[in-house]
Amino acid sequence: MPVLVVGSIALDTVETSHGKAQDSPGGSALYFSAAASLFSPVDVVGVVGKDFDFSTIEFLREREVDFTGLKITEGKTFRWGGRYKENMNQRDTLFTHLNVFQNFRPAIPEKYRQDKLIFLANIAPELQLDVLAQVEKPALSVLDTMNFWISGARDLLMQLIEKVDVLILNDEELRELTNKFNMLESANLLLEQGPRAVVIKKGEHGSVLVSRKGYFLAPAYPVPEVVDPTGAGDSFAGGFLGYLAACEDIDELNIRRAVVYGTVAASFTVEDFSFNRLKSITREDIESRFNEVREMTAF
Amino acid sequence: MPVLVVGSIALDTVETSHGKAQDSPGGSALYFSAAASLFSPVDVVGVVGKDFDFSTIEFLREREVDFTGLKITEGKTFRWGGRYKENMNQRDTLFTHLNVFQNFRPAIPEKYRQDKLIFLANIAPELQLDVLAQVEKPALSVLDTMNFWISGARDLLMQLIEKVDVLILNDEELRELTNKFNMLESANLLLEQGPRAVVIKKGEHGSVLVSRKGYFLAPAYPVPEVVDPTGAGDSFAGGFLGYLAACEDIDELNIRRAVVYGTVAASFTVEDFSFNRLKSITREDIESRFNEVREMTAF
Repeated sequence: MPVLVVGSIALDTVETSHGKAQDSPGGSALYFSAAASLFSPVDVVGVVGKDFDFSTIEFLREREVDFTGLKITEGKTFRWGGRYKENMNQRDTLFTHLNVFQNFRPAIPEKYRQDKLIFLANIAPELQLDVLAQVEKPALSVLDTMNFWISGARDLLMQLIEKVDVLILNDEELRELTNKFNMLESANLLLEQGPRAVVIKKGEHGSVLVSRKGYFLAPAYPVPEVVDPTGAGDSFAGGFLGYLAACEDIDELNIRRAVVYGTVAASFTVEDFSFNRLKSITREDIESRFNEVREMTAF
Repeated sequence: MPVLVVGSIALDTVETSHGKAQDSPGGSALYFSAAASLFSPVDVVGVVGKDFDFSTIEFLREREVDFTGLKITEGKTFRWGGRYKENMNQRDTLFTHLNVFQNFRPAIPEKYRQDKLIFLANIAPELQLDVLAQVEKPALSVLDTMNFWISGARDLLMQLIEKVDVLILNDEELRELTNKFNMLESANLLLEQGPRAVVIKKGEHGSVLVSRKGYFLAPAYPVPEVVDPTGAGDSFAGGFLGYLAACEDIDELNIRRAVVYGTVAASFTVEDFSFNRLKSITREDIESRFNEVREMTAF
């Protein structure tokens, strides 16, 4: 079963203590696809400019990522530049050129409208709502967002939260969204709004799945050397949804496992710039690290 | 088998957003004992002044905590006062009156010298070395320390690290000790100095056990409301060593479980001031929360 993703496609220029990557493919939709396609087919909705070099993402097509929903328009592709601090937990944005992404209005192709799993990557809540209106009722819709929308479009975001099944966000975003300090209390408040689960990402400290069935406490995979954290969150979502798309049932146990697969996908992403690492691995590498996490948490 | 603990006994005055406790019993040796005694007998070496009110710790005697090694001297008991910030992760020390603790020279009673498990709570490394010299080779010696000694008595501390079996410290202390940013790299460096395991405490983010057998990633128990974090670290050590003292073998699996028991003991401690909570619980309460952690980490 394919997973539908609607999000950004960008050319990133990233500097970390390990070097610099110039104009390399990135953006939420591609990071998501690179991870999810290790598990299942992916349908992409996004926009790029005429300058986008498709040869750099040829591996995605080979993994059954469908780009029917990709619009190629006059103008330049979205460009983002950032520099990470030594500890890799903080970064400065050096530039953001929205370019063709500025006027992105997601149009869901007919053939994607019955996709059962949907990832609403971080774009304006208004557009995310519009995407939901274009698809038939999916089995699982997953929402990502960011501080910018939490403070700038809170009402629309709250409307969205009532409609989606899973909310994935980091601990800081969660606090900003609920104005509560206690993470679990915050997540439970959000569950009352409608979603069946909230996944709280805590970076190197792992993640917590909060659902009506209780808590699942997942560690981060201990990556020996983080080279570039860009895309970790979107590949987490990719591993999470990609795994679930291949499952018979989307039950609590599979959602827990999906969190671990998300963790594992993200752990590969950060080991190199862009999706160089996700490009080189196979499903077997994912399984091997999944089993390592199992071993590292057994007691 | 009894566990030997050498550390401080204090009267703490603590303020948190949940209230204030005045001159309530505390100190590393007592927090350790309150937790460890839920699993096994404890032998205590420490010092108090004539003002110490033993009725407040009567429950420890009932749990087979032996105070033969407790010296009662002229003068006042060690007093510490602190105020926690709203997030409970930071605190200001309001006063430290060492009083009789100033001249503490641990003398290990004859009957304790063959104890097989030892906790060297946070005191001057010089005194910790002296304790090790007074006991016969223990099966497991566990060391705690703090930033003050890492910067002020580094050489003695490094001598100690060569002699002990397990080092328990928080992520900040670990970084200060090795001058490395990566936690796991730091822990592995310390393993090269002699210890068989390093336990890194990350507060609400859980803990990591690093040994030659690999990593064990343990979550923190999600405490709904932290009332007073004082003593969490020492009760972690108490649960850890108390459990191991009751084990036939101190193997990797039991050390992992000991980490979880430490986590559980600490989770009770922080739910109330002083050891009010540890006083009221039983081994069954510990087991119940241990099983909850198992359930919350299963996938």
